[in-house]
Amino acid sequence: MALIVQKYGGTSVANPERIRKLASRVGRFKKQGHQIVVVVSAMSGETNRLISLANEITKEPDQRELDVIVSTGEQVTIGMTALALQDLGFKAKSYTGSQVKILTDASHGKARIIDIDGQNMQKDLDDGYVVIVAGFQGCDAEGNITTLGRGGSDTTGVALAAALKADECQIYTDVDGVYTTDPRVVPEARRLDQITFEEMLELASQGSKVLQTRSVEFAGKYKVKLRVLSSFEESGDGTLITFEEEDKDDNMEQPLISGIAFNRDEAKVMVLGVPDTPGIAHQILGPIAEANIDVDVIIQNQGADNSTDFTFTVHKNEMHKALEIIHKEVQPNINAREILGDDKVAKVSAVGVGMRSHVGIASKMFETLSEEGINIQMISTSEIKVAVIIEEKYMELAVRALHKAFDLDEA
Amino acid sequence: MALIVQKYGGTSVANPERIRKLASRVGRFKKQGHQIVVVVSAMSGETNRLISLANEITKEPDQRELDVIVSTGEQVTIGMTALALQDLGFKAKSYTGSQVKILTDASHGKARIIDIDGQNMQKDLDDGYVVIVAGFQGCDAEGNITTLGRGGSDTTGVALAAALKADECQIYTDVDGVYTTDPRVVPEARRLDQITFEEMLELASQGSKVLQTRSVEFAGKYKVKLRVLSSFEESGDGTLITFEEEDKDDNMEQPLISGIAFNRDEAKVMVLGVPDTPGIAHQILGPIAEANIDVDVIIQNQGADNSTDFTFTVHKNEMHKALEIIHKEVQPNINAREILGDDKVAKVSAVGVGMRSHVGIASKMFETLSEEGINIQMISTSEIKVAVIIEEKYMELAVRALHKAFDLDEA
Repeated sequence: MALIVQKYGGTSVANPERIRKLASRVGRFKKQGHQIVVVVSAMSGETNRLISLANEITKEPDQRELDVIVSTGEQVTIGMTALALQDLGFKAKSYTGSQVKILTDASHGKARIIDIDGQNMQKDLDDGYVVIVAGFQGCDAEGNITTLGRGGSDTTGVALAAALKADECQIYTDVDGVYTTDPRVVPEARRLDQITFEEMLELASQGSKVLQTRSVEFAGKYKVKLRVLSSFEESGDGTLITFEEEDKDDNMEQPLISGIAFNRDEAKVMVLGVPDTPGIAHQILGPIAEANIDVDVIIQNQGADNSTDFTFTVHKNEMHKALEIIHKEVQPNINAREILGDDKVAKVSAVGVGMRSHVGIASKMFETLSEEGINIQMISTSEIKVAVIIEEKYMELAVRALHKAFDLDEA
Repeated sequence: MALIVQKYGGTSVANPERIRKLASRVGRFKKQGHQIVVVVSAMSGETNRLISLANEITKEPDQRELDVIVSTGEQVTIGMTALALQDLGFKAKSYTGSQVKILTDASHGKARIIDIDGQNMQKDLDDGYVVIVAGFQGCDAEGNITTLGRGGSDTTGVALAAALKADECQIYTDVDGVYTTDPRVVPEARRLDQITFEEMLELASQGSKVLQTRSVEFAGKYKVKLRVLSSFEESGDGTLITFEEEDKDDNMEQPLISGIAFNRDEAKVMVLGVPDTPGIAHQILGPIAEANIDVDVIIQNQGADNSTDFTFTVHKNEMHKALEIIHKEVQPNINAREILGDDKVAKVSAVGVGMRSHVGIASKMFETLSEEGINIQMISTSEIKVAVIIEEKYMELAVRALHKAFDLDEA
């Protein structure tokens, strides 16, 4: 008997019929003798409907109240999922984030989980209940409803698995596992049977979008066994996310590169011709961080004339806000020659723990892009990743070329 | 400066535009220097939509899970109302029933309020916030979400007013006050400037439907000053619900009868020819009460042959359940000659504290009905009320005739 946390996304609960199907599948696991915790998202489209309602009142809704409104989406789903399981003869009980309780900080709209009280859920599991928990939400220390941000249901699943010391956390998605890249861009993409946490982290954060970055970080931190499976196919073992040190190092035949990730959600902010003095990076990025804008790639190039060019990327939606902050709060102090924004860029990354012990991955990547006539605007490297920022229109071409160059195409 | 609780129903929050209007009105009170607590229902139609969703899963949803689903209706409205007030420049903060917290018993779907913690709300009020509370919901001692049953938002409003020692609880409805009877049935019906709690209680429970019985009981118990006003008209003082001992006894010119109430939601259950022994009433009604079925009128007539006829009324929706209980659980012990149900009945009542000191009200009522050829099936009297059960099809005729007979028609 295992304790399994299963997370289902919005398409799996899109309507009452799908919810009944989900309940049947959960019921089969339950009948095998497992203890099951189900984490569900809002019915697909519901979160957007609720945000639209709020936007009919005001274009800039207060985040606390938006969380109150938006969190009802999952609350409806947990009730319906419990009803569907009960209708099949199973004992089932729903929990909102506040009821669990999933304690978060007070950052409405992008709250982080601090602690989870698993006691009541464990008691219900021991009493034979299927426990159904609303994803994406929690409450702060004062009882205010918080949401973890879009996609936060994955994080809820992993965090619950950690709190309950579950044997496995299964994330059901509309794909049947993690692929070497997005099959919609490269039809030859292959499903990976397993992938390390580190690779997964890079692939997810780089835009593979199978799992949310935060959920993978969480799983890594708490050593949660994580598996990605298809919501719609009954067969298949999906992709198991492994701990490198335990599993993958044994396998000497591992490929250098596990996958090609890409992301078209980033925009570039360039602060050109600033004095090359100590502390300049902090002067520029400090106000950006204070405004809670996430920065991804950061590059600083020293110029010839004692000045330097500073470039970083943010989410496209936040580029204008970032530019405004630079103009208003930073420019008066640094007197940059020029401040520019560019949201017509994309990031493409080669990811693999194998590259750690091999030279030449980066140069092969640059060579491949060069052969396709693609100019590289920024380069960022980590131990298991080489990422480049290129013009957005070349993104698909770059992904296909790299997928082939690193021998990832289906045999 | 007063502390005012204002309760708005579903039609007042039917869409974002109405919510903005509501916020303007609340804002005007706030600007006058009052502390305001707003209680809102779900957007009209929303509760039915949510119940339908649940019914797509199962026709007999578990009440706990149904409460989880249905309570999201008000949760959306409180967030939107808070946003609308903030958009007008007011500080506003929403509370779900659980957040307040409004502690109830565990009777899902028809929970009763046990206690309200007003501390956080009072702090917010003192800090200048308009406090917005979800009507119709609370949570039990274990944190399960409960609902108070349809119309429970009125009760929430009154209970909050009691907990916060508010100066007045204003119930905004689609009528501009309490009338001598339903103006849709009798166009000559007049709005009452004030009415006693007792009369109001009878008028509401008899089906005037302006206020829910439980909210009026609550107001009486905790001496909450209650006023019924129109949501749609800006002028008018509505109808003030008074305590008889304080206000109305001073006025010697009060009318005998304040209003004619009616109710077509009742059904009659007849248990005929049962042994006339002590305890027979308990034997019959005990199982009905255990099944949580509310009984209104109860009549027992001794027969000639040592047997007795026992008749009571329940809500139409519960007649079949009541009959089933009588057949299965009661009949084996009492051996009644006949058990019958009739849902083609209506109740019509003359209500007024004035009748207390006057004889002849009942006989005038019977005379009036007799003149119209209406047969009386059951009679029930209390200190301030005479109610009769008649055939449903005569209901409007009876109401019109009585309204005229007791000089209630508009001058």
